[in-house]
Amino acid sequence: MSDPTGAAASSPGGLPDDHWRPTYEDIHVMIRHMAEVMREEFQPDLLVAIGGGGFFPARVLRTFLKKRDEKHPGKMRNVPIQAIGLSLYEEVDGVSEEQIGTEVIRTQWLDTARRVTDSQGRSDAGGLLGKNVLIVDEVDDSRTTLHYAYHELLKDVKKALESYTPEERAELPPTRFGVFVVHNKRGPKRAELPVLASPADDRIVDGVSTGVYYYAAETTPPVWIDFPWEQTDIVEHNRLAALAQAQGRRAGAPPPGGPDTL
Amino acid sequence: MSDPTGAAASSPGGLPDDHWRPTYEDIHVMIRHMAEVMREEFQPDLLVAIGGGGFFPARVLRTFLKKRDEKHPGKMRNVPIQAIGLSLYEEVDGVSEEQIGTEVIRTQWLDTARRVTDSQGRSDAGGLLGKNVLIVDEVDDSRTTLHYAYHELLKDVKKALESYTPEERAELPPTRFGVFVVHNKRGPKRAELPVLASPADDRIVDGVSTGVYYYAAETTPPVWIDFPWEQTDIVEHNRLAALAQAQGRRAGAPPPGGPDTL
Repeated sequence: MSDPTGAAASSPGGLPDDHWRPTYEDIHVMIRHMAEVMREEFQPDLLVAIGGGGFFPARVLRTFLKKRDEKHPGKMRNVPIQAIGLSLYEEVDGVSEEQIGTEVIRTQWLDTARRVTDSQGRSDAGGLLGKNVLIVDEVDDSRTTLHYAYHELLKDVKKALESYTPEERAELPPTRFGVFVVHNKRGPKRAELPVLASPADDRIVDGVSTGVYYYAAETTPPVWIDFPWEQTDIVEHNRLAALAQAQGRRAGAPPPGGPDTL
Repeated sequence: MSDPTGAAASSPGGLPDDHWRPTYEDIHVMIRHMAEVMREEFQPDLLVAIGGGGFFPARVLRTFLKKRDEKHPGKMRNVPIQAIGLSLYEEVDGVSEEQIGTEVIRTQWLDTARRVTDSQGRSDAGGLLGKNVLIVDEVDDSRTTLHYAYHELLKDVKKALESYTPEERAELPPTRFGVFVVHNKRGPKRAELPVLASPADDRIVDGVSTGVYYYAAETTPPVWIDFPWEQTDIVEHNRLAALAQAQGRRAGAPPPGGPDTL
């Protein structure tokens, strides 16, 4: 048996590299389990999917986050999804090395046409106000994109709250933010989020939670993750995932009993 | 062997019903094949994903529609995705039987803040102008949602074109629309699209194509389709899909050699 590239021979267990390779089904099942936790703790009213990575997790989450209709108790209602488009700067003329991977480009935001302003000039911040808003993405790597999304949405909410009198504000249900990612990579982050250690720590100040409910379906070492939706050859992806699985370990993770960075 | 529900015994080949059950991998591979056709014929510049059904297909399509960067030929660029939110009226107080399933609710549209208007007051219709715009959804059933999306986007483009002089319009690259769905169901439609029989029939009038490039990864009989992202039990879904596959037929389709409505 020969391996023309030599890659497999040099990697453990016949795998070409140390990437993690979750399958669609792996991710679907992980989302299901985490949705159960979120239904108990956070009860999302609205999903904000960061495109394109957040699209698949948000769509699957919706399946597991249906809510009973208050008017028709026999009926289950979908939690609405709004999409925002965010990208980290890639190599573009005029962008410095320093900016690459740290600055966020906004390609789509909540539909401003829907930012309802009533006859008293009060805004609902594009539907965010008084909701438990869950921001959804595929991976939390440097935390830069999530940081940007949270702070910009929070800014929209605070601005909308200014259009209410203190008395009106006190009547509004509080606005809370949560984050869901499929994978959170351990390691240094470039930006921070005020992650709540526990839901009991949630404090509402001026109508908004001061913390973020944080959910990662899986926390991984700082490995490269090959998401299934990025694959040109999904059959080969699944074959390599099964190979890693058969060896009792994730691709990229050390063999059982070996050193573990988790 | 007994079947407590009695359903399996009454259905062909131990399947509980006549639904079609594509797996994630089935759909991923179908999208790959159709993307090759679209890259040749239509060359999408922008995907407009109808949420939530269009999210998964749009994200997978992006993997197969990368374009060579004109400035850096060694680099591949993602085709951008914009999301719009459309739902058919469900049963809601005050909505007549007639409206259910025929009227479309717009929950998000292209970000109006990005509808660039230049110093001469010219608009780019939220980035649509001069692009090959591919509208993406999971299924074309009654065609109502796709009809709405196409006509509303077309309206935006025509309105933007009014802000240009005839001479300026002649200089602009044409705007074209395409539609991609994973499944098109055969059967009567409630709304029509001006589907081009062939790309050779494409005619540009006043800067916009008069037709629609139409792509369905699979055309099915009017069966119920269980999409994988809707499943609470993805393992059981895949088991039933494999069972149908092992019998040499799709769940819901007649056995080979039997009558075929396709």
